[in-house]
Amino acid sequence: MPQAPRHTQRTRKPVAQPHANRQVRGLRTREAILARAVDIASVEGLEGLTIGHLADQLGMSKSGLFAHFGSKEELQLATVEAARQLFIDRVTRPAISAPRGMPRLWRLIDYWLAMVEKNVLKGGCFFSAASFEFDSRRGVVRDRIAAIMHEWIGIIAGAIQKAQKTGHLDHKIDPTRLAFEIHAIALGAHWAYQLLDDHQAYSRARAIARDKLRAVATPACPQLP
Amino acid sequence: MPQAPRHTQRTRKPVAQPHANRQVRGLRTREAILARAVDIASVEGLEGLTIGHLADQLGMSKSGLFAHFGSKEELQLATVEAARQLFIDRVTRPAISAPRGMPRLWRLIDYWLAMVEKNVLKGGCFFSAASFEFDSRRGVVRDRIAAIMHEWIGIIAGAIQKAQKTGHLDHKIDPTRLAFEIHAIALGAHWAYQLLDDHQAYSRARAIARDKLRAVATPACPQLP
Repeated sequence: MPQAPRHTQRTRKPVAQPHANRQVRGLRTREAILARAVDIASVEGLEGLTIGHLADQLGMSKSGLFAHFGSKEELQLATVEAARQLFIDRVTRPAISAPRGMPRLWRLIDYWLAMVEKNVLKGGCFFSAASFEFDSRRGVVRDRIAAIMHEWIGIIAGAIQKAQKTGHLDHKIDPTRLAFEIHAIALGAHWAYQLLDDHQAYSRARAIARDKLRAVATPACPQLP
Repeated sequence: MPQAPRHTQRTRKPVAQPHANRQVRGLRTREAILARAVDIASVEGLEGLTIGHLADQLGMSKSGLFAHFGSKEELQLATVEAARQLFIDRVTRPAISAPRGMPRLWRLIDYWLAMVEKNVLKGGCFFSAASFEFDSRRGVVRDRIAAIMHEWIGIIAGAIQKAQKTGHLDHKIDPTRLAFEIHAIALGAHWAYQLLDDHQAYSRARAIARDKLRAVATPACPQLP
């Protein structure tokens, strides 16, 4: 945010902005509510996330929560957006800071695995659970989850194509197929870790992904961690 | 079932067994209820499967259903067992009729993929959905789902070991890791087919599994379909 010039800071009394402050407070409250909602939904599913249940957990009134969301569907949609933002903050944005090509592709996979491995949410991978919960339903919540998952698999496939352009990956491999395979390995790791308490799930998934990528890497490709 | 000798069939009048008949009818009704319950749960989740909802769908009274199950948890457990039986009937039992080694291993994968591809249930793979729905909960339903999934990944790993003993697969490969990988590929296919309407998901999953198995097959291994 741009700062006001110094002299105005010293000489002018701050103008009270009760409406703007209320808005900021309201946004912060909304963020805090949604952070809790993402965590609850990761355990109990988006259908298990009712306004009543969330109000109980937050020690708020149902009517107070209704003022923010109005309906269960609105709450579900807002929770999905908050989960997407969390995923961007933890996985896609930090991965993009890695050098183009294989390093960036590797980080996308590695950070996704790490997000569940480090128990950022109580219930494992929010979108793996939401995918299987909503895949056979109809409606706006399902459509939004499917759109975000199309976006995610597209990001993996895009990173593979960039790794081909950078000369790190064999240009003959099919990015769609490799993205499918890498995504599946991570999904399998989330399943084994969260349901079977398999503590080797992530080291195994990384080993499989590493072997898979090495098999299609060029001699110019930097070493994988 | 063994048949009674012919002369007794002709000369003896059948003895009325009203109690036994009631039991048979009761079992058939229970089977029919659970077949519907598995289908509903595949779409709406095991938590979405309430006695009231199921009674509505079957045109039965709630009290009639209560007589069969008593509680939502009993209904969920019975539904999980019915889904396991369906899986045995459609996947594990027919696969076991294939010759030992690679043919049997291949059929386990192929029939599992086919079960979802052929839309046997409205909501895709029952156990993939149930796994992600219950993986972060506690209680007997979660424990039963986890036990069945341990059993399933154990069946895949066991088939890999038998393929090694039969001389079809390299004895140096780790059966646990290969079972993890094959399971993940199928899970990824169910996800892509059911959520993203990706109609190439199954041909892609079969191609990936085939390439994976060919890479670790011995020269003695029969050709994969």
